[in-house]
Amino acid sequence: MKELRVDLKDRSYPIYIGASLLQQQDLLARHVHSKQVVIVSNETIAPLYLSALQRALIGYQQETVIIPDGEQYKTLEYVGKIFDHLLEKKFSRNATLIALGGGVIGDMGGFAAACYQRGIAFIQVPTTLLAQVDSSVGGKTGVNHPLGKNMIGAFYQPQCVIADTGVLKTLPDRQLSAGIAEVIKYGLIRDLPFFEWLERNMSLLLNRDDDALAYAIERSCQNKAEVVAEDEYESGVRATLNLGHTFGHAIETGVGYGQYLHGEAVAIGTCFAADLSHRLGWLGEADVARISAIFKAAALPVIPPKAMTVDRYIDLMSVDKKNVDGKIRVILLEALGKASLPVNVDPTLLEQTLENYAG
Amino acid sequence: MKELRVDLKDRSYPIYIGASLLQQQDLLARHVHSKQVVIVSNETIAPLYLSALQRALIGYQQETVIIPDGEQYKTLEYVGKIFDHLLEKKFSRNATLIALGGGVIGDMGGFAAACYQRGIAFIQVPTTLLAQVDSSVGGKTGVNHPLGKNMIGAFYQPQCVIADTGVLKTLPDRQLSAGIAEVIKYGLIRDLPFFEWLERNMSLLLNRDDDALAYAIERSCQNKAEVVAEDEYESGVRATLNLGHTFGHAIETGVGYGQYLHGEAVAIGTCFAADLSHRLGWLGEADVARISAIFKAAALPVIPPKAMTVDRYIDLMSVDKKNVDGKIRVILLEALGKASLPVNVDPTLLEQTLENYAG
Repeated sequence: MKELRVDLKDRSYPIYIGASLLQQQDLLARHVHSKQVVIVSNETIAPLYLSALQRALIGYQQETVIIPDGEQYKTLEYVGKIFDHLLEKKFSRNATLIALGGGVIGDMGGFAAACYQRGIAFIQVPTTLLAQVDSSVGGKTGVNHPLGKNMIGAFYQPQCVIADTGVLKTLPDRQLSAGIAEVIKYGLIRDLPFFEWLERNMSLLLNRDDDALAYAIERSCQNKAEVVAEDEYESGVRATLNLGHTFGHAIETGVGYGQYLHGEAVAIGTCFAADLSHRLGWLGEADVARISAIFKAAALPVIPPKAMTVDRYIDLMSVDKKNVDGKIRVILLEALGKASLPVNVDPTLLEQTLENYAG
Repeated sequence: MKELRVDLKDRSYPIYIGASLLQQQDLLARHVHSKQVVIVSNETIAPLYLSALQRALIGYQQETVIIPDGEQYKTLEYVGKIFDHLLEKKFSRNATLIALGGGVIGDMGGFAAACYQRGIAFIQVPTTLLAQVDSSVGGKTGVNHPLGKNMIGAFYQPQCVIADTGVLKTLPDRQLSAGIAEVIKYGLIRDLPFFEWLERNMSLLLNRDDDALAYAIERSCQNKAEVVAEDEYESGVRATLNLGHTFGHAIETGVGYGQYLHGEAVAIGTCFAADLSHRLGWLGEADVARISAIFKAAALPVIPPKAMTVDRYIDLMSVDKKNVDGKIRVILLEALGKASLPVNVDPTLLEQTLENYAG
């Protein structure tokens, strides 16, 4: 088992990475300081891993909330169902919430923990590659709104993150690729050697080679932990983790949550960002081609949905958390391995990029 | 104008107390750092004070969200309406939310600000005595749930609190008394000289004497600011501000939100707490009588609703933020002017107190 640390003063916490961590009673006991424990999971993950986690929690007062699987259920309404259950069971403010699932469960469970009685303890047990390398680390929690992704939420740090690499065995190929999109992101924004390692080792990752996956998860978490430690509330460098996300969120919201996996939309969005970076003279054509090629090698889409028009993109992108006074700002690449801070984009160039891609 | 300070390191902020502060453009401009401003208010307050505030904000992009008046609208559903409006108007994360109203508007507006895009700036403009002396100070935000009061929320500090004492001229008598309940609370939990001042000067307060009101507000805010600075997240002494609230919340939830004003329920709840403190030998009979007498002098109720049975109290009190592992804990008085920390009450004594009062 590897142990990394997210360094946030009195909100610091460990990330554990390794096989069969879910079953480790000691590891959980170290971080659960209450009798009352609620596990939040979804209909796909619960049949696979809920009982193992429950066995590791024998002796606690356990409750379970199961949510349907998919981005379309990441809503205030479903967070409300978690509150209903906790209140019906008279859960106290010292209770612990464990989020067992992918990014949707982690985001919702974390937001429920942030708001229930103004904040209870929570533990992230991410079960997708995307959640293990990205969404479970750093304390961003929240839900979607019909008009914008992750528009309602809180910064709220977990007690620990338990990334059991064994659960990736049952992850569908499409979900594995979606996770790799965020892995590639770390290479692109701040870690060129890792990007080059990914170019060489993509087939090992897709074949779920244990060592390659473990290395990619650890290196991704290390990158994420460093960025978050530097800028917990995203007043600066943390925004670079949003490479491709402004375009990606517009796609997810525009075609309806659940159509694209988040990582798929980010892959497409990153191709937009690369194109725009090229128009600004920051990336060469060869760089843009390498970015497109690595996503294709990871079996990720690089072409946006035909249904999206330029106006629709602009409309959706004008609600984004990086915007200031309603003006669109995006993360671009100054070079391979080096992200920009949020950029106020020249509308003409932005439209050129969108027209280049829009349906 | 008086200026107090809530000392919370990088989350510190001023409380301004004085007449005609609402109209002061400079005061607002000092704390609004965005072009986009949304005012959240209710149907009673908006016709009285919204236009004055809007005039003080000329030059900003202004939006307004008006919510029906009453505790029964302090729900996740109505917070959702604030999110809808902000997203429709494409409000950015650097926007400012101004809560113009009593405790309900301050709590909901603050919670909306805490969660919109994971947190935007907000300003409290409390328009009831209760909000000016208590709920607008200290960063507790949130909404009610059918099963428990203030069960969903966040600790989230405002940029400043602007307590315009002029607006109290239009406050209904019932609301004035409800605010005095929380003023009395400060005397009871930590400021015996203030309690004695209140015993002597209650009729001045009820007659809305300017100097008496200004003094009561300032001294209450000073007490609150000291407690909050010592314990922002209520891991200790801040819980003493909850004197009477465990019983009071049970009454509010039990008979239906909006039947009792919060301060009315707190007055009754404090009589319960006094009775229980007496049973523990902490308060003498004369102390209990003084507490009951001062609430009566403030035109506040001291007898609970007949509809509430002992079982109903116990059931409702078993969801309270002070509870640990589901066990009921309450704040009591060790003496007049000295509150206890949360106490695990002997169930027999608790039932005796409840039976003494229940219908």
